[in-house]
Amino acid sequence: MADTQELEPTPLVDEEPAPLVLSPEWIDQVSDALNAGDADAVQSYVDPLPPADVADLVEALSSDERASLVRMLGDTLDGEVLAEVDGAVRDDMLDALQPEELAAAVADMESDDALEVVADLDPEQREDLLSRLPEADQVLLRQGLTYPEYTAGRLMQRDLLAIPGFWTVGDTIDFLRASSDLPDDFYDIFVVDPRHQPIGQIALSRILRNKRPVQISEIMETPLIAFAVDMDQEDLAHEFRQKDLTSAPIVGDDGRLLGVVTIDDIVDVIDEEHEDDLLRMAGVSEGDLYEAAWDTTKARFQWLLINLGTAVLASAVISMFEATIEQIVALAVLMPIVASMGGNAGTQTLTVAVRAMAMRQLNRRNAMRIVWKEVIVGGINGLAFAVIAGGFAGLWFGDAMLGIVIASAMIINMVIAGFFGVAIPISLDRFKIDPAIASSVLLTTVTDVVGFFAFLGLAALLLI
Amino acid sequence: MADTQELEPTPLVDEEPAPLVLSPEWIDQVSDALNAGDADAVQSYVDPLPPADVADLVEALSSDERASLVRMLGDTLDGEVLAEVDGAVRDDMLDALQPEELAAAVADMESDDALEVVADLDPEQREDLLSRLPEADQVLLRQGLTYPEYTAGRLMQRDLLAIPGFWTVGDTIDFLRASSDLPDDFYDIFVVDPRHQPIGQIALSRILRNKRPVQISEIMETPLIAFAVDMDQEDLAHEFRQKDLTSAPIVGDDGRLLGVVTIDDIVDVIDEEHEDDLLRMAGVSEGDLYEAAWDTTKARFQWLLINLGTAVLASAVISMFEATIEQIVALAVLMPIVASMGGNAGTQTLTVAVRAMAMRQLNRRNAMRIVWKEVIVGGINGLAFAVIAGGFAGLWFGDAMLGIVIASAMIINMVIAGFFGVAIPISLDRFKIDPAIASSVLLTTVTDVVGFFAFLGLAALLLI
Repeated sequence: MADTQELEPTPLVDEEPAPLVLSPEWIDQVSDALNAGDADAVQSYVDPLPPADVADLVEALSSDERASLVRMLGDTLDGEVLAEVDGAVRDDMLDALQPEELAAAVADMESDDALEVVADLDPEQREDLLSRLPEADQVLLRQGLTYPEYTAGRLMQRDLLAIPGFWTVGDTIDFLRASSDLPDDFYDIFVVDPRHQPIGQIALSRILRNKRPVQISEIMETPLIAFAVDMDQEDLAHEFRQKDLTSAPIVGDDGRLLGVVTIDDIVDVIDEEHEDDLLRMAGVSEGDLYEAAWDTTKARFQWLLINLGTAVLASAVISMFEATIEQIVALAVLMPIVASMGGNAGTQTLTVAVRAMAMRQLNRRNAMRIVWKEVIVGGINGLAFAVIAGGFAGLWFGDAMLGIVIASAMIINMVIAGFFGVAIPISLDRFKIDPAIASSVLLTTVTDVVGFFAFLGLAALLLI
Repeated sequence: MADTQELEPTPLVDEEPAPLVLSPEWIDQVSDALNAGDADAVQSYVDPLPPADVADLVEALSSDERASLVRMLGDTLDGEVLAEVDGAVRDDMLDALQPEELAAAVADMESDDALEVVADLDPEQREDLLSRLPEADQVLLRQGLTYPEYTAGRLMQRDLLAIPGFWTVGDTIDFLRASSDLPDDFYDIFVVDPRHQPIGQIALSRILRNKRPVQISEIMETPLIAFAVDMDQEDLAHEFRQKDLTSAPIVGDDGRLLGVVTIDDIVDVIDEEHEDDLLRMAGVSEGDLYEAAWDTTKARFQWLLINLGTAVLASAVISMFEATIEQIVALAVLMPIVASMGGNAGTQTLTVAVRAMAMRQLNRRNAMRIVWKEVIVGGINGLAFAVIAGGFAGLWFGDAMLGIVIASAMIINMVIAGFFGVAIPISLDRFKIDPAIASSVLLTTVTDVVGFFAFLGLAALLLI
């Protein structure tokens, strides 16, 4: 036991942890150092940080500060930072880097991160960068660029461990001890046949638990779960979740082992897909936060223009009843209530449906059951709000019939909202349109049009 | 090389993969077997599936079918399925399980999954279940229940590998080979001092790469990153992302090693947090899809009631201008356009802000910069839509002044929307209110009230 006493007294619970969120005060200090041109101070702030924290720092700075930081760090900039930052921020960084500094950073990165950065460059910049890289890296990156975006081929790490099945545990351990150019982290070793096609996979823990003479082919896991290089990244993430994978081999059309996707890549994919779902439902593009005001304005304009179209459609419905409104102005006061309640009820349904589709929980088989449920939910809540809004409107304007009109319109619109809240995303998906993007515009068009039409139409029939 | 020839020709790319989504046709077959009471057929469908796929199957079935399935599987049901399904579906399953079957399933689960299931039971069921479990499991679970929900303590796996630092690589390998009750999967081994406080961590790949006489304390990674047992799961997930961790030790107040959280738990946390953000913005609760219609109706009622309040507020604003509308009915036709455009522009901003706050990209330091940017974006798009909507309204009703009124109201409302789209979530967060929940109601209240007031108010001033 004496030996343990000699160990350095290392902190137990990170007594001085890197700040959980890089604190505003801390970033102010870095920013001051940057503006004062104090390269040593900047270096001392950045050096102890893991790349993801440096990326957060860069994102928190202004555009000018980003450029200063990149210039001060020069070739000490860890390439991984480039892979971690948001696309718009990366552009700021790339502009500030000297070509040879960029090449040094990229050469130092893992192959999947390097590919992400290179894929983002414009063609000339990319050619220039590639020509500065070692031949082997060039070949790998050029090959990587041939795989479509958002596929396994773009995510996979090319460095991996593949061994023949006739090796023993002892051979494998000896090989690992003798090799110098192993990947930094790996959880599994792949077993390949002479044509380099994977035939099995073996977790490191299993190698450690078996004796040296045991043959790898006896303890490897089969059948092997391998995925095609052109598999969509979202499908791949789904498989990782379902099968609790930590890494998976990726194979080409010929079945040859090309690379490995690890769970940390999958965490990034999951983050991305979630972000896309959330932002698309509101008609915003990724990276919006870091874009310049003018780029953001342009990107959002289109969505707002579509929404203007649907608002005008609703106005057209109202204008059909101008004569009725002229006689009973209370209708103009109350009509937004019906439309708004339909819109909100429909959005609740829609959000649940879009999320369920992203998680593969909503499909042809249970679609009818869920549509039916939403219609019932819309009907019951419609009834409840018919009583509340009808009573309230009747009292406010001292007109029981007006209360009955708004109550009836409320029920109609909330049932419609429940139905279309599920039906719209399912239909869009059938036509291969991303339900997250178009659903909410279509839905509010329906609930506005139906809301105004039912309310004003019933009023024209019953009140005049 | 002769040896490799003897290997079984295992499929390369999963030639008959388990269906990516359990296909509707396949689920129909299972459902038929369930309804026909054919237990053997059901068993043969379920047996080859990993637990996550069985969970998907259970979720896709109706409530009655779920009960039949659970009864037919009996004690062959893999406990992990219970951990994987949605809460509302799990209740269906728990109702159908015999107490001793449930106990068998839970005893078989990993400690973190078992804890999740037990935490979900009502107190009597929980006591009954605990009393049926082996003493050691009982103690672990009761202790686990003392940690607050959504903390590291609830996520952590209690089985882990901890060794003293004075061991050699050889000692460690021998120990692993001799132990029979190791966790199924592990990526790291922890090094502890005699008081069981963690002092280092060592990846399996590093053990494999070093020679037998090397001492663990020489090759372990220090300083150790350990997290407190009461750390919020969202903060923990953030740390995993930032530091690219695959597993992390969890320690008690006394610094003793209590358990380990692995990246697959973190993937679940990330999924959950994303789901919460998305659903809360629409006022829906988690698990909504699988709840009975009546439960869903009640859960959504409250949100709709709040929205009714804001709609009535908007109506009150309109009613201030009844006399004006009576004179110019066109105002009633056009007024929803201004409110709707403000609402949509504000929601774009709001969604970006809520997402940025969840990802810790929006903080006190850059808040002003982003508010300012959003005001500019709102102003520019407001100008653009002022021209479009103003021109359109002027032509439609043949009244240039009406066009000027709607144009001015549009600019005002879209600038206001940009400002409040960021200001509301930031303020809520400062008051410790989840910005995802309350922001959208507050925002649409603002954009409705301002939209109607600006448009009708300007009309009353300029047109009459």
